[in-house]
Amino acid sequence: MIDPEAIENYIVELAGHGAWGETGVWRTVYSPEWVAAANLYARWCEEVGLSVTRDAVGNVWGRVEGSEGGNSIVTGSHIDSQTPGGRFDGALGAIAGLIAVSLLKDQYGTPKRTLEAVALCEEESSRFPGANFWGSRAITGAISPEEPEKQLSFDGETMASAMQGAGLDPRRIADAERDDIEVFIELHVEQGPVLEQTGLPVAVVSAITGLRHYLVELKGIQNHAGAFPMDLRQDPMAGFAEIASQAIDTAHRWGRPAVTTVGRVIPEPNKPAVIPARVEFTIDARHPDAASCEKLYAIHERMMEEVAARRNLELSWRITADHAPCLSDPGVLAVLKGAAQEAAVPFMVMASGAGHDTQQMAKRSKVAMIFVRSKDGRSHTPEEFSSIPDIVAGIKVLAAGLHRLAY
Amino acid sequence: MIDPEAIENYIVELAGHGAWGETGVWRTVYSPEWVAAANLYARWCEEVGLSVTRDAVGNVWGRVEGSEGGNSIVTGSHIDSQTPGGRFDGALGAIAGLIAVSLLKDQYGTPKRTLEAVALCEEESSRFPGANFWGSRAITGAISPEEPEKQLSFDGETMASAMQGAGLDPRRIADAERDDIEVFIELHVEQGPVLEQTGLPVAVVSAITGLRHYLVELKGIQNHAGAFPMDLRQDPMAGFAEIASQAIDTAHRWGRPAVTTVGRVIPEPNKPAVIPARVEFTIDARHPDAASCEKLYAIHERMMEEVAARRNLELSWRITADHAPCLSDPGVLAVLKGAAQEAAVPFMVMASGAGHDTQQMAKRSKVAMIFVRSKDGRSHTPEEFSSIPDIVAGIKVLAAGLHRLAY
Repeated sequence: MIDPEAIENYIVELAGHGAWGETGVWRTVYSPEWVAAANLYARWCEEVGLSVTRDAVGNVWGRVEGSEGGNSIVTGSHIDSQTPGGRFDGALGAIAGLIAVSLLKDQYGTPKRTLEAVALCEEESSRFPGANFWGSRAITGAISPEEPEKQLSFDGETMASAMQGAGLDPRRIADAERDDIEVFIELHVEQGPVLEQTGLPVAVVSAITGLRHYLVELKGIQNHAGAFPMDLRQDPMAGFAEIASQAIDTAHRWGRPAVTTVGRVIPEPNKPAVIPARVEFTIDARHPDAASCEKLYAIHERMMEEVAARRNLELSWRITADHAPCLSDPGVLAVLKGAAQEAAVPFMVMASGAGHDTQQMAKRSKVAMIFVRSKDGRSHTPEEFSSIPDIVAGIKVLAAGLHRLAY
Repeated sequence: MIDPEAIENYIVELAGHGAWGETGVWRTVYSPEWVAAANLYARWCEEVGLSVTRDAVGNVWGRVEGSEGGNSIVTGSHIDSQTPGGRFDGALGAIAGLIAVSLLKDQYGTPKRTLEAVALCEEESSRFPGANFWGSRAITGAISPEEPEKQLSFDGETMASAMQGAGLDPRRIADAERDDIEVFIELHVEQGPVLEQTGLPVAVVSAITGLRHYLVELKGIQNHAGAFPMDLRQDPMAGFAEIASQAIDTAHRWGRPAVTTVGRVIPEPNKPAVIPARVEFTIDARHPDAASCEKLYAIHERMMEEVAARRNLELSWRITADHAPCLSDPGVLAVLKGAAQEAAVPFMVMASGAGHDTQQMAKRSKVAMIFVRSKDGRSHTPEEFSSIPDIVAGIKVLAAGLHRLAY
């Protein structure tokens, strides 16, 4: 049986490394707090009888060898945090993996297939802005030999130096690569309000959203706010406002799971009585279906061109991030749905609007995810919260799923 | 006759004090450059036989006494500049006044009514952000005794100290007050593109725009750009974009002379993948007709309330500037129209979308303005330019108008 008190103890103890205020966590990759958290996770794995290894980037693995050998069934998530973040984002998946694997071992003995729990080293880009998915990228062989010297932290330190500070050798990164992981399942907090609004504790995740980030520049002509008639203006703020409205309204009209966000805008010179010379802004557009992504991006691009042409503005953009949707493996998805039914956990199927290590792991393995309800849909903040009963429900589904796959 | 070469010499010589680059001027009130420019203007007045006085704030007056005494007919503008500005904004009106008055004196002798040309000390707020119309406010008794100690420059210096540095006594400001100015006429560059687009050198100004500045705050709820469905968002950027679009479009649909500008927007936290928590922005709305001002402001306020309520955002605003329209005196306006016809200068009647010393002078005097065409509508920049033929046309109208009023 799953012990609610034990879960709470794991969560609170891990959150003690990098504790920030009452409920927050500030634990960036390779920091002293991170080293302590990784050591703690390794100790826990040993305590429950898993064989522990640490790979070249500091991912911590706890393993139960399967009687039939072959490739592994793996579960886990990252243990680095936002600055500050909460106790649940990432950490909960690492803890849930440990609990589920140890539970199965205790209850059913040696599995046929090898089972592993993993604490991945980095996902958040909260110390190295360009390094995200560092842990899962090392596992899938997606880190080039030059990258540790090129990735710079917000303080200007290289990734290589940070790794050395945590006792790791950046020249050995390739050793972390694995080609023997058949299935990867990640339990994670939802980070959105859908489960709460629907009144369900858990979701099985059918896909991780595709997303594209545009960095857009609109150039007009800077002029006096009083002396220039509206009909003669080339006002990039007018163009921006129209583009932002249309982009946001398009996703709204499409409905879930389409989302579009304009989170950043910087006009120049940004003065009350001056028509701006230029406005720079971002568009973040997401959809978990590949064809819908292409359609949404094309609508945005045509719309921006139309607005700029009509308003006599110079338009340019760069695509600063572009991730294809990641579909869950239909077989693993079916296993998790069956597991939820078997465990009598009420659930829904949904797509993830956020990115996760799972989409990196999908390059080598069959993947799926389990979401646990987030209070008020909040994440990336110390206020992030998921209840123990909801977490228990999520771990039940995870354990039942792993049982179906490994026994 | 008006000598084009003399005009050009005046403009170039005055621009030599505070010269900035090839064609720019950087001449803030009470700076050494400003002192030199005021001295030069006084010398010019003497050279053409005007009697020169300087008042307590440093306005320079050149006077021809009228044979019938009584209140004065005055023309002029300010000689401080933007940082940097051009050679024409303000300076041209001070020079034009000097030329017109001296021309009339030379051609027609002693006028019936006293004629004065004036170089006003400050209009731009380019050194003291809260001090605008300092020269014309002194003349109209609108500077309180405490103000010289309260007005702080961008460098933190008090106005009182800056005045003392220019040899002026801030305790004597009240001495600058005048109640004997019957008519004030200001010639100024248009600072907009209307004359250029219309193909005319000169306009007679029927009114100076009313304007209101709103500083608006929209508060929503900060959330993850991927995990929050559109239908559950409280996104202040969506509200801002809709409000800015509607405000700009309303003025556009109304047509000239209504203008509305959104020049400044600051979201928080201003990150690409985060729905902002709040967006702060400005609205600058202008119309030269008082009833239209009220209607425009009411439309904006109702619209903002509607958008905020529909999008579940918290709305608040402060009015940071609020100036009623200033109508030109119908009699003086008729004089200038007649003068333009008499001088065979093609002209139009238009409202000013920018503020001017004239609106301050209107509190005590009958006022009107003359605009001279601006190249590309540019102003507040070293590229500001008006041609000598256009300037000659403007001075012809000014001189003919002063002749009608004073002889």
